[in-house]
Amino acid sequence: MKLEFKLEYKDNKTMARLGEITFNNKKYPTPMFMPVGTNATVKTLSPEELKEIGSGIILSNTYHLWLRPGEDIVSLAGGLHKFMNYDGPILTDSGGFQVFSLAKSKDITEEGVKFKNHLNGDSLLLTPEKSIEIQTKLGSDIMMSFDECVKWPSTHEYMEESVNRTLRWAQRGKIVKKDNEQLLFGIVQGGEYKDLRKFCAEELVKMDFDGYSIGGTSVGEDKQTMYKMVEYSTPYLPENKLRYLMGVGDPIDLIENVMRGVDLFDCVSPTRLARHGHTYTKYGKINIKNSKYKDDFTPIDNCDCYTCKNYTKAYIRHLIVANETFGARLLSIHNIYYLHQLMLQIRENIKKGTLVEFRDEFIKNYYKKGE
Amino acid sequence: MKLEFKLEYKDNKTMARLGEITFNNKKYPTPMFMPVGTNATVKTLSPEELKEIGSGIILSNTYHLWLRPGEDIVSLAGGLHKFMNYDGPILTDSGGFQVFSLAKSKDITEEGVKFKNHLNGDSLLLTPEKSIEIQTKLGSDIMMSFDECVKWPSTHEYMEESVNRTLRWAQRGKIVKKDNEQLLFGIVQGGEYKDLRKFCAEELVKMDFDGYSIGGTSVGEDKQTMYKMVEYSTPYLPENKLRYLMGVGDPIDLIENVMRGVDLFDCVSPTRLARHGHTYTKYGKINIKNSKYKDDFTPIDNCDCYTCKNYTKAYIRHLIVANETFGARLLSIHNIYYLHQLMLQIRENIKKGTLVEFRDEFIKNYYKKGE
Repeated sequence: MKLEFKLEYKDNKTMARLGEITFNNKKYPTPMFMPVGTNATVKTLSPEELKEIGSGIILSNTYHLWLRPGEDIVSLAGGLHKFMNYDGPILTDSGGFQVFSLAKSKDITEEGVKFKNHLNGDSLLLTPEKSIEIQTKLGSDIMMSFDECVKWPSTHEYMEESVNRTLRWAQRGKIVKKDNEQLLFGIVQGGEYKDLRKFCAEELVKMDFDGYSIGGTSVGEDKQTMYKMVEYSTPYLPENKLRYLMGVGDPIDLIENVMRGVDLFDCVSPTRLARHGHTYTKYGKINIKNSKYKDDFTPIDNCDCYTCKNYTKAYIRHLIVANETFGARLLSIHNIYYLHQLMLQIRENIKKGTLVEFRDEFIKNYYKKGE
Repeated sequence: MKLEFKLEYKDNKTMARLGEITFNNKKYPTPMFMPVGTNATVKTLSPEELKEIGSGIILSNTYHLWLRPGEDIVSLAGGLHKFMNYDGPILTDSGGFQVFSLAKSKDITEEGVKFKNHLNGDSLLLTPEKSIEIQTKLGSDIMMSFDECVKWPSTHEYMEESVNRTLRWAQRGKIVKKDNEQLLFGIVQGGEYKDLRKFCAEELVKMDFDGYSIGGTSVGEDKQTMYKMVEYSTPYLPENKLRYLMGVGDPIDLIENVMRGVDLFDCVSPTRLARHGHTYTKYGKINIKNSKYKDDFTPIDNCDCYTCKNYTKAYIRHLIVANETFGARLLSIHNIYYLHQLMLQIRENIKKGTLVEFRDEFIKNYYKKGE
């Protein structure tokens, strides 16, 4: 079962697009938000809950699964879908971002990245070939090329050197990729430099990947810089292929980057925020631990999710304060549902040609009462 | 909606009984195991999951809810059922056991127990009247009298003094109990002393409670002593009232104590064991973290629960090792289902008159491969 993408509609006021993914006889509309299941589980949630709240593609982390339980165990289980009991599409990253953000010390060479892992400090080497080998064993439907994720800000000089290495790594990964049903995406790097983003995108397109990611975002840059990174990349990507902006999940960033031509997003934020008692509402993020919710017997956001239909802020606050994981579960359900509903509204407004107005109205409300 | 109990059948070889609880237009057979939802949540599980695995009465802890979120919050929410979204029967304990096991220091007087609470060290006083007041506000369907839970072993002299105080406390609680639909149980104490258990049970029965608990178990005594404590109590309790053995949940203890005339059991063990990766099988308890399960792609126990139908030992092991709460959730589902299924088998064997044979066979298997 190979994942297929069809571009269906282009907004004429922005670069926003509507598309459709077909996988395993099911259709999934884009633009789409993808929840993150780092360890082959979207934290606190079951596959059935993910489906009920409208999840399509979910993401799993190559670095984490490589270290634990090991790609061979997942492979023996019959791949990630069987291992974790999820029959929707699964995307794996390359491990590059985690090596850069989690590893204890690292040494970047042409061969790959040598580093000490964050679990037990063992020395490991991750290369473009190894990353593809692991992802092949994991059996995801969309794989990522191994890239260097550079911190922000970096000099043009370093970024140029890095982009060239990332391109050589992308080529090496493509060479060893098996001729199977897994897709392989190239990752556009280049920081905030217009010329490097263009160069990187054009070179990747020449290699003809199955889709393209925009990386090097969510590494400390401000929102305007992030939007520029996307603007400098998407114009050079083919229209009939998926475009995935990595690690971005703030509601406003989802809208802004759809307007810049992005189809796919992922972020740990809805589940991570949930564990800390933070949750999205029409009027911005709130912290459920705030004592004013102690006797607030209304739902978080009065939406149609399981959490809002059955539980009050007072109860969820109690669970979070008492460290009960059912609280994180209820907030994770709401937070992911919220982002899926936002994407639905985005798609509807693209259809109607009112995406800009929708964004303006959304931002106005979102900054009204947020904490 | 008042909870009602009807005794339906008595085994003629043992003291085992079959009964039926009616609550909110639903019927629940006894003997029954009750999962514990300390903080108004059975750890990691939703009310829907509890129903799916066959839970009837669940237990919540007065001490914990008194401290957090406070009984007034639960009362404002409309009681525990509405607060936690559970429409099955709810039993609350008196807080006595927790004061004795969790409080930092305590001072027992005729009035009640002065202690420093385990969350912030504040000085508090729990009395028989206060316990009933809190439980009334929580709105449980079965309340417990406030009792002194004495450590094992204790001298006959101390136990006699304590039993008399527990009886005076039971009377004081009964006096302040509102004339509402909540049931109130008396608690039989008396340690391992035959005369004191008999005395305590008979005195409580004179006060005419809605049901009777057997307390002072699971405080460090060995199995045979626990069984004696039950044997010394149940003969003096009326047949038409529920009998609840507090804090007991080991599979073998469930069978043995049903044979001694017990109808209700509760224990944190299925969910606590789950969090530590322990789980029940026909062949005893196993520790899923054991490395031999790393590539074991079979279910835990091949039963009909959600966990066994959908997940392998290898996956659950991975989740527990990676500290993913979905692992504790999957094991909690299996562990509670296992105990509910055990109770079902116990009831079937009472009906067939084969409870003794069932116990012997169960024990033989349970000690075969357990770790």
